[in-house]
Amino acid sequence: MKIEVKKNILASNDSIATANRELLEQNGVTMINLMASPGAGKTSVIIKAIEGAGDELNMAVIEGDIASEVDSLTIEAMDTTALQINTGGACHLTAAMISSALEHLDLAATDLIIIENVGNLVCPAEFDLGETARVMIASTAEGHDKPYKYPLIFKEVDMVLVNKIDLLPYCDFDMDRFRSIVAELNPGVEIIELSCTEGTGTGDWSRWLLKSAAPVSG
Amino acid sequence: MKIEVKKNILASNDSIATANRELLEQNGVTMINLMASPGAGKTSVIIKAIEGAGDELNMAVIEGDIASEVDSLTIEAMDTTALQINTGGACHLTAAMISSALEHLDLAATDLIIIENVGNLVCPAEFDLGETARVMIASTAEGHDKPYKYPLIFKEVDMVLVNKIDLLPYCDFDMDRFRSIVAELNPGVEIIELSCTEGTGTGDWSRWLLKSAAPVSG
Repeated sequence: MKIEVKKNILASNDSIATANRELLEQNGVTMINLMASPGAGKTSVIIKAIEGAGDELNMAVIEGDIASEVDSLTIEAMDTTALQINTGGACHLTAAMISSALEHLDLAATDLIIIENVGNLVCPAEFDLGETARVMIASTAEGHDKPYKYPLIFKEVDMVLVNKIDLLPYCDFDMDRFRSIVAELNPGVEIIELSCTEGTGTGDWSRWLLKSAAPVSG
Repeated sequence: MKIEVKKNILASNDSIATANRELLEQNGVTMINLMASPGAGKTSVIIKAIEGAGDELNMAVIEGDIASEVDSLTIEAMDTTALQINTGGACHLTAAMISSALEHLDLAATDLIIIENVGNLVCPAEFDLGETARVMIASTAEGHDKPYKYPLIFKEVDMVLVNKIDLLPYCDFDMDRFRSIVAELNPGVEIIELSCTEGTGTGDWSRWLLKSAAPVSG
């Protein structure tokens, strides 16, 4: 019974996700679903994306949080369109929430949308939002063993950002082991090492974005 | 419809949680539901509990993970009873899972059970497991603003462990601001500052456990 309900929810979500994806394709928009644990650096990674690629791409950000709008205010202060979705307790965004948000954007004039999903390594990985690419952030402070415990998200993503590499000297994080565990789960997936605090790797992140979202407008 | 289902699931969970709590009370067992983000240090905090209070309390650990049994193997290597629950994708433990685990423990000979919940700041806070106390870990690497984004869990807990204080010089974490945000959500809640790596605060954590779980056996 419980499984039945979940199946129905996922099927209904999938059909809305497909419609979102078609709408984006019609308008030549790239949409990235950015997922991570709480505090892994999602907002900082988006700020670096705006700083690094904002001149070349017309960007918009959809901020998903259970509560608060601190993140969308931060993004708006950078003169970038930011839509806040408060899930009111729900632990992930859904395709329907994104569909509502897309109605508020001028898609013909947009190259790239970054969605900041709710901070959670579990449920967001199960819900297709209609994105064109999935990116996750792993923080060095979380340790290199997280792919063992949250395998689905590591399998599902198109790219892994390892953030907070400035903390490597102080954390139990073996980059070689991390890379080999991730490669087992998701062979060939790209991994970019990043420090938003010190700026290391932000050029690689911008280049990845520019490659993913060829500008079509502006 | 969706809300209806959720209400039923929570009501059914609550009745099993109540039965778990009664069983624990009959046997004089304290059970702590330990919740945190992925990589905040749950297993390390449990190891410190065993090192600091394991001589005085008969302890058992219930490890909740989506996949893998690395944590229960670590605990068993310390000569402490460890039961592994793999949720197979579910993002939190339920009272029914704990009820099954309790059947495998000699409750009359147990003083303290620590449950390591799935790494997630959202869903675990909604599900009563029948615990006698709720403890959460906030990692300094996550930043001091997490209570704004995940308010429910900060409201629901009996104690907050701030772990990884050895990283304070390298992280954007203002302890005074964190304490004042938490105090607004949960007035009077105790906060213990901890570094499992350096051992700072582990005495406070052991004393809190010994106060919470007066030994009744052994």
